[in-house]
Amino acid sequence: MYQDRILRRELIDKIVTADQAAALIKDQMVVGSSGFTKAGDSKAVLPALASRAQAKPLHITLLTGASLGHNTDAALTTSHVLSRRMPFQVDPVLRKSINAGEVMFIDHHLYETVEQLQNKHLPPVDIAVIEVTKIEEDGSLVPTTSVGNSAHFAALAQQVIVEVNLSMPLGLSGLHDIFLTGGYPERSIIPITSPSSRIGRTSIPVDPEKIVAIVITNIPDSPATVVPPDVKTTAIAEYLLDFFKNEVKQGRLKKSLLPLQAGIGKVANAVMSGFLKSDYENLTMYSEVLQDSTFELIDAGKMTYASASSITVSEEWYHRIMDNLNLYRDKVVLRPQNISNAPEVIRRMGVIGINTAIEFDIYGNVNSTHLSGTHMMNGIGGSGDFARNAFLSIFVTQAASKENAISHVVPMASHVDHTEHDVDILVTDQGLADLRGLAPRERAKVIIANCVHPDYRDELKSYYERACQRGGHTPHVLEEAFSWHSRLATTGSMKKSLTELSY
Amino acid sequence: MYQDRILRRELIDKIVTADQAAALIKDQMVVGSSGFTKAGDSKAVLPALASRAQAKPLHITLLTGASLGHNTDAALTTSHVLSRRMPFQVDPVLRKSINAGEVMFIDHHLYETVEQLQNKHLPPVDIAVIEVTKIEEDGSLVPTTSVGNSAHFAALAQQVIVEVNLSMPLGLSGLHDIFLTGGYPERSIIPITSPSSRIGRTSIPVDPEKIVAIVITNIPDSPATVVPPDVKTTAIAEYLLDFFKNEVKQGRLKKSLLPLQAGIGKVANAVMSGFLKSDYENLTMYSEVLQDSTFELIDAGKMTYASASSITVSEEWYHRIMDNLNLYRDKVVLRPQNISNAPEVIRRMGVIGINTAIEFDIYGNVNSTHLSGTHMMNGIGGSGDFARNAFLSIFVTQAASKENAISHVVPMASHVDHTEHDVDILVTDQGLADLRGLAPRERAKVIIANCVHPDYRDELKSYYERACQRGGHTPHVLEEAFSWHSRLATTGSMKKSLTELSY
Ligand SMILES: CC(C)(COP(=O)(O)OP(=O)(O)OC[C@H]1O[C@@H](n2cnc3c(N)ncnc32)[C@H](O)[C@@H]1OP(=O)(O)O)[C@@H](O)C(=O)NCCC(=O)NCCS
Ligand SMILES: CC(C)(COP(=O)(O)OP(=O)(O)OC[C@H]1O[C@@H](n2cnc3c(N)ncnc32)[C@H](O)[C@@H]1OP(=O)(O)O)[C@@H](O)C(=O)NCCC(=O)NCCS
Repeated sequence: MYQDRILRRELIDKIVTADQAAALIKDQMVVGSSGFTKAGDSKAVLPALASRAQAKPLHITLLTGASLGHNTDAALTTSHVLSRRMPFQVDPVLRKSINAGEVMFIDHHLYETVEQLQNKHLPPVDIAVIEVTKIEEDGSLVPTTSVGNSAHFAALAQQVIVEVNLSMPLGLSGLHDIFLTGGYPERSIIPITSPSSRIGRTSIPVDPEKIVAIVITNIPDSPATVVPPDVKTTAIAEYLLDFFKNEVKQGRLKKSLLPLQAGIGKVANAVMSGFLKSDYENLTMYSEVLQDSTFELIDAGKMTYASASSITVSEEWYHRIMDNLNLYRDKVVLRPQNISNAPEVIRRMGVIGINTAIEFDIYGNVNSTHLSGTHMMNGIGGSGDFARNAFLSIFVTQAASKENAISHVVPMASHVDHTEHDVDILVTDQGLADLRGLAPRERAKVIIANCVHPDYRDELKSYYERACQRGGHTPHVLEEAFSWHSRLATTGSMKKSLTELSY
Repeated sequence: MYQDRILRRELIDKIVTADQAAALIKDQMVVGSSGFTKAGDSKAVLPALASRAQAKPLHITLLTGASLGHNTDAALTTSHVLSRRMPFQVDPVLRKSINAGEVMFIDHHLYETVEQLQNKHLPPVDIAVIEVTKIEEDGSLVPTTSVGNSAHFAALAQQVIVEVNLSMPLGLSGLHDIFLTGGYPERSIIPITSPSSRIGRTSIPVDPEKIVAIVITNIPDSPATVVPPDVKTTAIAEYLLDFFKNEVKQGRLKKSLLPLQAGIGKVANAVMSGFLKSDYENLTMYSEVLQDSTFELIDAGKMTYASASSITVSEEWYHRIMDNLNLYRDKVVLRPQNISNAPEVIRRMGVIGINTAIEFDIYGNVNSTHLSGTHMMNGIGGSGDFARNAFLSIFVTQAASKENAISHVVPMASHVDHTEHDVDILVTDQGLADLRGLAPRERAKVIIANCVHPDYRDELKSYYERACQRGGHTPHVLEEAFSWHSRLATTGSMKKSLTELSY
């Protein structure tokens, strides 16, 4: 079964069980694993490590591409394996430990992890765990459904454990474009000029001597949970599609727009699906993750090319894609995440970035990560890589949630991930605020008029007006700036109680 | 006198007085002017416009490279000429109007202004005012002591007014490297790979038909006020020099370091001067502004090459440089600011960015712009372009000021310009915090231990400990987060009064 997947014959001797491989990971090691938004993660070695730690405790620093599937982060957390974790996660169990201060989580711009490793600003990677489709004759590794940080982990680690996943079709070979940025001062140009540019090789180079173990697996990726569009996400998508229509009409964009990036979260998928019913053509994507909507657009002939670091789709689409890879061979490429998210390339191509906010404030500062300014949700992911460098930086969120007890438009963002400089367009189910070329006081008026839920509009307006009386370029009533968040903590709602209102 | 400076002869007919040229600027026009950190600004036309507006009111949108000299921003403000101003300023009179909400100030990353103009996210430039050393035979313009946004203003404007400044030595010709980034989707690579790379031409191309007026001037730039090092800036410089020494020792940097960027503010100059007494060699600079210290380092043989968008130096150095341009011809280049500040290039070369903060918080979020979160100081300038993309992002500030009534290390930054993701090293006169690879709770401990003034240390520690009791990845006591700023507003000091302390 695996003979056609390990073309460097002598490596066949390295095949071991997952437990044997996991035993190579020692206490206090720094481990770099494949896995990006659930795709292409370690299916055997990290889970085996979690089991082993239940009997014999150990602690590691775990670096990945982004989030892992199969509840692996939960298992590792429950077994107390993680002392440090970076650069991203989406796991409820791990999240709880992070917020309790038990796991030290380092939240990176996804572009940055490899930079910091190369620059020796992080401790060196002891061991890499990489899922592959196959090992080539020269020992190089063909990734599976994601590239993430695998290429650099393999290059930088002392030892490499390989998981050969038999469930991954051999047809994945050829889909990847592996380009390694060198260290300083001899760093080269990243010569990508369009989403379809191929600048590297199709497999990850690795010194075969470093491969210390090979584990055979046969488990597919965890599927993405795709939430069907609802009233709110549909409203947001419609505002955004109208906006694009007008940009084309005004001559600021062509019908092919510019390369699109869509973040994770339920809104982004709804927006992308909205393009299906539009008259755009020759769309392209330069993003982190290819989702269901990408393949819908390709199948519909609306999208000609999509570049990202992973394929993370629903169970239905997973099988459709894996069984028909030939259909997508010339339309899709998977890259290392420090290429998919490279500021250089995002700027050069003028990517349109659409990301989801947890909340934003009247001046357009965006919180993507911290509930009420303190509790980590997932992490900044690639949102900053794209928002800062985009041709247009768009953030979307529902205006209010939890039966409107929470307003996602607040007086002051309780945590800032993206400053007003990096935010052009804000959209909620209430409407769209076009902030281009506006000063803070003008931004506030447009945001209050268009984005806030009606239940909160008057109070937000009152806040802004009282702030203006104190003056300033960006007026605030500092002692009231987080009063909505404090109220949520004490009363369960950001709304003023009736007693307060009577004042 | 000017004959050797206007080599395209027919343009001599366009020579007019400053008043005549200013008359071409009409009410509601968008004006793009040369001028970057006081260097190479309009000496005649903008001042004439200010005078004219006193008799006959008019309002314009004024775009520049960065700040202007000669109190021009003050004159324009007093005459109520400015309805909108971008992307940077340092003028006390203008600042007051901005904070009163009279002038709409749009605070850009300095890289971004031209991007937004090219993308039509800002209204088009009607008229450009560009100071030049001379006009070449093909009508192209040789800038003076800065390039700023002049090249793109000239390309994008309907009409161009040229100021030929006879006080600028003809030897400035050849110092500039003009490269224009094209619009989307055919944007090209910026092929700079070292500070000394020359990728463009030495003058700004312009259609001579667009040149509507030429004004002859003879006024030097406003000098930079260079504050001599004091106890605090010297302490900061020493901590930083020790840090670099150790980085070299640990093998993370070579003795030539990597290209340096130093922001404005009194500390940066002290740090750069500190290199004079060090054993670094073959230093280079890839920055926005060349200051006195740059030329000191070149003269001392410590620095081999410096690239920036302007030369802004003290009166003494101004004359030394202007009289001896041949000494610097092969060691200095001036570029458009969207090249000096290009994320692509800053990343590729691994620039070390040193910028000044107004305040930072226990997690390392930095405020560069807003006093007490509301009142604009100068603007973000290029600090974000460098901090985000730097090999090492360093921020410096005094630990406390105004007889220690103000702590520059606070529980929560009252305005965030640079998030914790973009801040590696923080330095005050109390010490240095190395935040690389640390989670927020670890960052807090290092910052409190090393950076805060002793008068504030206990209270900051208490804040952090009480915050941790509430949990979270980034613990805060939201209703107390700005209590220091509120106290400053009401009592004139961030310190707890004796009554409060007795609790
Ligand atoms: C921001 C992000 C969490 C939004 O994802 P989403 O699935 O659209 O999230 P929602 O709007 O449903 O979730 C926010 C939840 O937090 C809750 N919430 C928001 N503010 C809150 C607060 N102050 N206190 C408590 N809960 C709060 C909301 O009620 C909502 O809960 P619900 O799902 O039960 O309605 C997600 O996009 C993300 O992690 N982004 C950062 C990474 C990124 O952008 N990457 C981009 C490139 S991939
Ligand atoms: C941040 C910046 C203003 C610091 O400049 P600086 O000359 O070092 O400033 P100082 O530390 O002296 O100034 C801060 C002043 O604000 C005061 N201040 C700080 N916080 C304050 C507050 N909350 N309320 C009132 N005053 C406050 C300080 O007391 C100090 O006053 P002083 O000069 O009388 O001591 C300046 O570097 C800047 O504008 N940076 C943004 C642009 C940039 O970084 N560009 C980089 C590339 S060029």
